[in-house]
Amino acid sequence: MYNFEFKNPVKILFGKGKIAKLANELPKDKKILLTYGGGSIFKNGVYDQVKAATKGFDIIEFGGIEANPHYETLMKAVSIVKEEKVDYLLSVGGGSVLDGTKFIAAAALFEGDEPWDICAKRSEVSIQKALPIGAVLTLPATGSEMNGNAVVTRVSTQEKLAFDSPAVMPQFSVLDPEVIFSLPDRQVANGIVDAFIHVMEQYLTFPVNAPLQDRFAEGILHTLIEEGPKVLANRNDYEAAANFMWSATMALNGLIGMGVPQDWGTHMIGHELTAYHGIDHARTLAIVLPGMMDIRRKEKQEKILQYGERIWGISEGTSDERIDQTISKTIAFFESVGIKTTLPDYEVPAETIGRITSRFEERGMKIGEKADIGPKEIQLILEGRL
Amino acid sequence: MYNFEFKNPVKILFGKGKIAKLANELPKDKKILLTYGGGSIFKNGVYDQVKAATKGFDIIEFGGIEANPHYETLMKAVSIVKEEKVDYLLSVGGGSVLDGTKFIAAAALFEGDEPWDICAKRSEVSIQKALPIGAVLTLPATGSEMNGNAVVTRVSTQEKLAFDSPAVMPQFSVLDPEVIFSLPDRQVANGIVDAFIHVMEQYLTFPVNAPLQDRFAEGILHTLIEEGPKVLANRNDYEAAANFMWSATMALNGLIGMGVPQDWGTHMIGHELTAYHGIDHARTLAIVLPGMMDIRRKEKQEKILQYGERIWGISEGTSDERIDQTISKTIAFFESVGIKTTLPDYEVPAETIGRITSRFEERGMKIGEKADIGPKEIQLILEGRL
Repeated sequence: MYNFEFKNPVKILFGKGKIAKLANELPKDKKILLTYGGGSIFKNGVYDQVKAATKGFDIIEFGGIEANPHYETLMKAVSIVKEEKVDYLLSVGGGSVLDGTKFIAAAALFEGDEPWDICAKRSEVSIQKALPIGAVLTLPATGSEMNGNAVVTRVSTQEKLAFDSPAVMPQFSVLDPEVIFSLPDRQVANGIVDAFIHVMEQYLTFPVNAPLQDRFAEGILHTLIEEGPKVLANRNDYEAAANFMWSATMALNGLIGMGVPQDWGTHMIGHELTAYHGIDHARTLAIVLPGMMDIRRKEKQEKILQYGERIWGISEGTSDERIDQTISKTIAFFESVGIKTTLPDYEVPAETIGRITSRFEERGMKIGEKADIGPKEIQLILEGRL
Repeated sequence: MYNFEFKNPVKILFGKGKIAKLANELPKDKKILLTYGGGSIFKNGVYDQVKAATKGFDIIEFGGIEANPHYETLMKAVSIVKEEKVDYLLSVGGGSVLDGTKFIAAAALFEGDEPWDICAKRSEVSIQKALPIGAVLTLPATGSEMNGNAVVTRVSTQEKLAFDSPAVMPQFSVLDPEVIFSLPDRQVANGIVDAFIHVMEQYLTFPVNAPLQDRFAEGILHTLIEEGPKVLANRNDYEAAANFMWSATMALNGLIGMGVPQDWGTHMIGHELTAYHGIDHARTLAIVLPGMMDIRRKEKQEKILQYGERIWGISEGTSDERIDQTISKTIAFFESVGIKTTLPDYEVPAETIGRITSRFEERGMKIGEKADIGPKEIQLILEGRL
């Protein structure tokens, strides 16, 4: 196991009815900006629950934060924060609203030239302060509710970039599984696959003798495989919804990644597919991961075999045969929840591959758990998905 | 899954060399009381590492905190804290030193009549404030390094009682697995069994459809069974030490107990064996747990069968046969690490059983995950261990 430091002070309020506890968590003496997305909170009753729970608080609203939240949109919110002297943010939505809210929180107090540098110059800019954030989660998927990560898209340059800071961890997150009851299939499926691949990025690397982290990761994968389809089949299955929701949070709150190598190459490539073609984040991951497993079958061999055996019961055949079967099983799982896994499925032309590899070339950036995946490997990964 | 609220802000610094990072975590402007136990920190080099890392800090020392820390001893520390205007506590030791330090932290700011009420009137007294605590852990076992729990013994009345408060969670805990290298077999074995039974108290109850919590619990049990004996066999096996240490922390930092019923009956009965006979905490648990499993085989049936199958591979025979085998396997594991499991092994006379049941009678207290274990059941549990 590697050395590590871990601190996750996010308070989780989990279960049905927990939105009603908001008043215990929010500060009475602050001006709050309630952020939300495309308006689903008005249809599923969450907005009404939030309003009922926050009577007497000083709240203004900012809606319209998109999936893959736009820098351009978020900067409008930053202006409102400054004009209205907002000093607390309440995110009511899914991972995109919360990621966008984290960016607003950091940008509002950013002292550099241009807030886009928070993402674009991530390695140089260290975010030490941000407005405090609370969250009501309406979509289990990204894990943003219990971490300090965010991803933001700049439309003008077709860039999708991440940043992270302990300063943007929510002070609290309300996780009421009943919010899942009204989600469309597409969002549930995205959430299952997103959480699944968050685990894979922290698990499918190389062994460092960290059996507890492995078992926790495998526990989340098993639970997603078991409970995810139940949620898809019956949107009112509260217990399955709860198990799915808690799994998605545990998939990316930092815990399973402590003391082990992490990959995140699938995400880095996937973000480019979203940036160029607007494909849902989870779907880009489902495209890239099988290619990543295929191309990295040597480097990841031990962990792919362990994953294949413990998750899918694959223990017969040569290593290569077992790896092939394991990739097939992984693809079949994604397809079984309705997520397609090839580039043609999303009408992505072959030319996109060159655009993506050029971008990595320009950035001079290598990715993966050994930082040894460059443009050539990325080309192979994506060509395998044509 | 039940509703729950979870917040664990303890910062963990894990790995070899991490004691050297103490200066980054401790406040420069506070007067620190370094608390320790019987003096092993002077032999194993931990004291020297702590002193080297804290040059320039204003630190005084208080040693002699016993295993099962004594109220009488801790109150001496409280006097020193008040006289010397100490405003930060640094615990350097195992779970007992840290539990004792938590009590000092709460008692120093306690405004009631007598600080013993923190434990004795636990249900009435709510600890809202305490001195801040940092910890360097020298013995993996109790999980105290990442929770707000403590157990204190009052010698004058032979009482061993617990309290808990978020206010006594350490601000940080340093976990350097190298501290294990110098531990005697007895303490390693105690740590393995203590952590194992912490998991069991949160796992071996009744199912509430919380598969992720179950798998995390099972992951810790598997890891303790696998890595614990390696540590016993080779005290310098850093990797096994690290896996054992992280498992013990994860066993009782609250996470696996979220959303599920919890028992703690084995602990409540075990505490009485320590109070009357001074038996090591972990050993009392190893005595009581098999009796608890036996007497509660109906109430705990589903979870005992699941535990037997997933942990010990027991899947043949009637339910009762499988439960018997599962109890035998559990006892055999404890014995394999050198922990005896019957009352005669510790020369506890049969009369003690009556003294313990009278005490529960007097307190009018029922225990277990359904609060339905009273004196009669406790008598049966302990008689089974004669």
